[in-house]
Amino acid sequence: MVSFASDYIAGAHPAVLKRLVETNLETLPGYGTDEYCASAAEKIKKACGLGQDADVYFISGGTQTNQIVISTMLKGYEGVICADTGHINAHEAGAIEYFGVKALPLKGEAGKITAAAVDEYCSTFYGDDNHEHMVFPGMVYISFPTEYGTIYSKEELSDLYEVCRKHDMKLFIDGARLAYGIESKASDVTLKDIAALCDVFYIGGTKCGALCGEAVVFTGGCCPKHFVNLIKKRGALLAKGRLLGVQFDALFADDLYTEIGRYAIDMAEKLKKIFADKGYRFFLESPTNQQFVILDNKKLKELEKQVSFGFWEKYSDTETVVRFATSWSTTEEDLEFLKRVL
Amino acid sequence: MVSFASDYIAGAHPAVLKRLVETNLETLPGYGTDEYCASAAEKIKKACGLGQDADVYFISGGTQTNQIVISTMLKGYEGVICADTGHINAHEAGAIEYFGVKALPLKGEAGKITAAAVDEYCSTFYGDDNHEHMVFPGMVYISFPTEYGTIYSKEELSDLYEVCRKHDMKLFIDGARLAYGIESKASDVTLKDIAALCDVFYIGGTKCGALCGEAVVFTGGCCPKHFVNLIKKRGALLAKGRLLGVQFDALFADDLYTEIGRYAIDMAEKLKKIFADKGYRFFLESPTNQQFVILDNKKLKELEKQVSFGFWEKYSDTETVVRFATSWSTTEEDLEFLKRVL
Amino acid sequence: MVSFASDYIAGAHPAVLKRLVETNLETLPGYGTDEYCASAAEKIKKACGLGQDADVYFISGGTQTNQIVISTMLKGYEGVICADTGHINAHEAGAIEYFGVKALPLKGEAGKITAAAVDEYCSTFYGDDNHEHMVFPGMVYISFPTEYGTIYSKEELSDLYEVCRKHDMKLFIDGARLAYGIESKASDVTLKDIAALCDVFYIGGTKCGALCGEAVVFTGGCCPKHFVNLIKKRGALLAKGRLLGVQFDALFADDLYTEIGRYAIDMAEKLKKIFADKGYRFFLESPTNQQFVILDNKKLKELEKQVSFGFWEKYSDTETVVRFATSWSTTEEDLEFLKRVL
Amino acid sequence: MVSFASDYIAGAHPAVLKRLVETNLETLPGYGTDEYCASAAEKIKKACGLGQDADVYFISGGTQTNQIVISTMLKGYEGVICADTGHINAHEAGAIEYFGVKALPLKGEAGKITAAAVDEYCSTFYGDDNHEHMVFPGMVYISFPTEYGTIYSKEELSDLYEVCRKHDMKLFIDGARLAYGIESKASDVTLKDIAALCDVFYIGGTKCGALCGEAVVFTGGCCPKHFVNLIKKRGALLAKGRLLGVQFDALFADDLYTEIGRYAIDMAEKLKKIFADKGYRFFLESPTNQQFVILDNKKLKELEKQVSFGFWEKYSDTETVVRFATSWSTTEEDLEFLKRVL
Repeated sequence: MVSFASDYIAGAHPAVLKRLVETNLETLPGYGTDEYCASAAEKIKKACGLGQDADVYFISGGTQTNQIVISTMLKGYEGVICADTGHINAHEAGAIEYFGVKALPLKGEAGKITAAAVDEYCSTFYGDDNHEHMVFPGMVYISFPTEYGTIYSKEELSDLYEVCRKHDMKLFIDGARLAYGIESKASDVTLKDIAALCDVFYIGGTKCGALCGEAVVFTGGCCPKHFVNLIKKRGALLAKGRLLGVQFDALFADDLYTEIGRYAIDMAEKLKKIFADKGYRFFLESPTNQQFVILDNKKLKELEKQVSFGFWEKYSDTETVVRFATSWSTTEEDLEFLKRVL
Repeated sequence: MVSFASDYIAGAHPAVLKRLVETNLETLPGYGTDEYCASAAEKIKKACGLGQDADVYFISGGTQTNQIVISTMLKGYEGVICADTGHINAHEAGAIEYFGVKALPLKGEAGKITAAAVDEYCSTFYGDDNHEHMVFPGMVYISFPTEYGTIYSKEELSDLYEVCRKHDMKLFIDGARLAYGIESKASDVTLKDIAALCDVFYIGGTKCGALCGEAVVFTGGCCPKHFVNLIKKRGALLAKGRLLGVQFDALFADDLYTEIGRYAIDMAEKLKKIFADKGYRFFLESPTNQQFVILDNKKLKELEKQVSFGFWEKYSDTETVVRFATSWSTTEEDLEFLKRVL
Repeated sequence: MVSFASDYIAGAHPAVLKRLVETNLETLPGYGTDEYCASAAEKIKKACGLGQDADVYFISGGTQTNQIVISTMLKGYEGVICADTGHINAHEAGAIEYFGVKALPLKGEAGKITAAAVDEYCSTFYGDDNHEHMVFPGMVYISFPTEYGTIYSKEELSDLYEVCRKHDMKLFIDGARLAYGIESKASDVTLKDIAALCDVFYIGGTKCGALCGEAVVFTGGCCPKHFVNLIKKRGALLAKGRLLGVQFDALFADDLYTEIGRYAIDMAEKLKKIFADKGYRFFLESPTNQQFVILDNKKLKELEKQVSFGFWEKYSDTETVVRFATSWSTTEEDLEFLKRVL
Repeated sequence: MVSFASDYIAGAHPAVLKRLVETNLETLPGYGTDEYCASAAEKIKKACGLGQDADVYFISGGTQTNQIVISTMLKGYEGVICADTGHINAHEAGAIEYFGVKALPLKGEAGKITAAAVDEYCSTFYGDDNHEHMVFPGMVYISFPTEYGTIYSKEELSDLYEVCRKHDMKLFIDGARLAYGIESKASDVTLKDIAALCDVFYIGGTKCGALCGEAVVFTGGCCPKHFVNLIKKRGALLAKGRLLGVQFDALFADDLYTEIGRYAIDMAEKLKKIFADKGYRFFLESPTNQQFVILDNKKLKELEKQVSFGFWEKYSDTETVVRFATSWSTTEEDLEFLKRVL
């Protein structure tokens, strides 16, 4: 069945898979010490405009990456500010809490939080006489794009980073779908901007063309000491680290990562137009690869017999919000088919 | 350089990789709900002689698997008995402790512990007036083969399982290198025996032909409720669960897993003979794919210029124990070369 | 200085201290196995109208009690619903998260949450296709009285308990100030009602006349196995458990606990009248021992030179909410003095 | 019944209790910010010969103190070296592991470990090529006196501290029974020596005259930031911190702490002589308040009808090791009685 269910319905982008096949018989050392991990890290630093004080590590999945970055960067008395709809707060089964960290959710707007809201939270916190008995805000977590497909402008990111520095907090950007954020037509934010405007972020692989894997980037000197040991302790160190290194080395060769983002955005724009042309309403305006459409429940029942997509939330008694996602694996034929059956 | 450094120096066994390539463009649901995970689970249950009350789940790596199984199966007042040299006690960076569980190490013999030692430990524990203030033994963890390449006989396993039931403990077998254990010429234990003689075990993929992945097998009805949620909470749920499903589906098709084990054992036997014929001594008698040889330090310095192998431990002021491992990727040429340069 | 800063500004109620002195030289066994712990537990069960399937344990402080009860009663995939202003969510430095549990805060109204809001949360949760990747609601936590001094009616408690049973959740009542809740003139809830309408609750000692200590009451058969071991593991088992046993044995002799609550409520009613008579406004209507008054900032500066009280929150640019608390140690003279200086 | 069962069979030393009574009605702020905590801290610093860079905090119990000190001082990749018989390894129900820390036990001798053994452990650790995958030794934990009543000499402590600095580890001394260690006739170690020869230690209150409470002393500048918040997060911050402050203020007035230690040691020496004179054998030579005697099982059965003491361990099929403890509450009459019935 034609599927827009998510951006992880297919395996790896063919160019990524090709490199896995080509390198398969090479003898390489384990645990991320191989030459492909090193090469991928260098390519990523370069693409990010970062120098030698930056550090890049590869981890298998997104929840794991969030868990590891947050639990290793925060001090014992700190928690992490996030949008109430942020992935760490809403959809990770309590993973950061399992590692001892409290999420400090702020009411988000279409998945985003503002520098002003963060600033107010911190001011109220430090103004409270009892704050020594409360969880200190030690980090701000945002996703780019957000879980609602929305993105921050360069100015919004700068403001957030500034307020983080004002209150001695780290800024961490979850880039599970980063390719689609930086390639959005509505975005004035580049990969270099991301790297310049936070302390740590990750470049999503799993949802942007890899079989698995995320690249954590510490932008300047703030990587926790013995980070490999901390990864191991959290169960996340792959013996065959090459699996991640080779894939990211491929994703950052020949602009592939950018290309994957751009292609999926083009497909999303076309998909958006198909819905708009047919008079469908959108739950919100998303400029990235996830589109949230309001479907009449009757239409929904019909449509799901022919096309796969994701349920998002109830909109009214007779309507539902559903999600259509594009990726490198979306084809023109898929769109044609959708258009026909809509 | 010719390498015997470990059993994870190459990528995936070609037949496994082939299946990843063949299925790459298929549209599949995420998080382990795809047909390949289901098919692999069925094949594994069948190969293990298990019925429908058994449960099979796939997890990326060994430390992670140990961490998840142990932390989800134990009750809050329980810890896990293991050999002092057991992987969870010695080489996982404190991973189970990070998840709140205390290891209860017993002095091992060439990596093994005995039913008698476990029984004595438990008797002493329950005989202590203060045992309510101590960690209850709730599980026995053994590895098969052990970290020293040794294996348990069927009788030893039966005895251990019996003592576990006597003291109301689970028996968990870490099968990171299971293929080499059941295919060892010295082994009277089959995969079906393993499945019949413990509560839970895992079938190692990473060190036995996969790019990554271990298959956890709950042998009968003891899988923790909402296990997928517990995996997610521990950061270990892959979005593209197919990566593990497809690989294990391939490993358990056409007896591939067995074949990989048998081949590596053959290579290990030949390697052993090469060393023995040249008069080298072994640190211990290992019937599996890891061989521990005592090298004069001078010889070691020479040899490591031509062949890769692993350092194990200091043997004397002038000698060192080193490890040579074989796998599906070891070739006759590798052995010929070793013979020449030894 | 005359102080209404909190209900823990003095030591123990004289009758409690007297018993500590009288029993001081008695030889008693440790860790809560002494006769006073046993006697106190029996008195509490009786006062609660509970039978022999109930269990009572004594723990030093409130945060610790919340942490222990919540972390031992929840299953691995569960979190705890609470008001956003609930003590566990707002003022315990992330204590339950440190023990791995996620708080699931609902917007409260004067510190309270409703059965309807809890029901809706659960219905939405189970209606979500992805709920297997989210934290299951496994418990509802409420405080009685709440952090805002408000109380639940018997009907509200019944409704909450019913909705808990409907969704297979435990109901846990934090009774840090329980004496003031059940003795409030506005309350139709008795200690027996509390015990009948939840799975577990605690009877606050620290804020109701003891030097330290809270009595956890499992109302019927749901006490976690080896609970003493779980307390020990969390660092909370006192060697001289008598310290808690003797105090609760005194608090539950001769209706002392009730009397302490009644006296503080009387004092609070008088204090309220003093403020009301002088035209002060209240932040909210509290029928218990904590009163929240809105003070002009200028007045506040003056007043705090003569009387101690607690800052609560900013009300406007020129006004602040402050808290005045009464307890067994509040005197008529204190009130007279307050009246004079107001 | 006359009891030598432990050093926590009675309440508080009368002089300590007296101060609790005298200060009971004073109005004091909460959470350890009262004047008695401050005064006690100053007295302790002075008694320890420490300056203003030292920090003193009060915590309710020993296991809790160990848990808090260890979990807050270690870095994420570190564990704690201890004797296999050390309290944290053997008798705390896995409390430090619950807080995520692995114990690294060394074989002890009568409860003690040597600087040489620690040094060898660390050298082997750093000499291992795979040590990045193992738990780094970050602290050495010893108890003074040990769980077997034995003590370290000043030279032994100096050597241990030196080896800690050599390998960049903290030295932590568990002084649950410190009074008995420094007042032992066999001891050349003073309180000032303890303070000079480690990074952090605690002065036991519970087992040395208090109702509850231990005083943690960070000897110089190494107290974790926001330590009160970290205590709160671990559930251990008492609202009425005065309970601990007043007691330690009394224990460190008029040399009471020393006197308590000296008295119990005198009683222990007499008790020892009673056993020796009657020809009983000791399990080991203890110079402190715990004496370990080997009893014939028949004698044991008789004796326990008249005197309370503690079971320690099986010695042979017909003999058992039992523990007799003295404290400030032991009387000459107790000893006379023992002598009669022995």
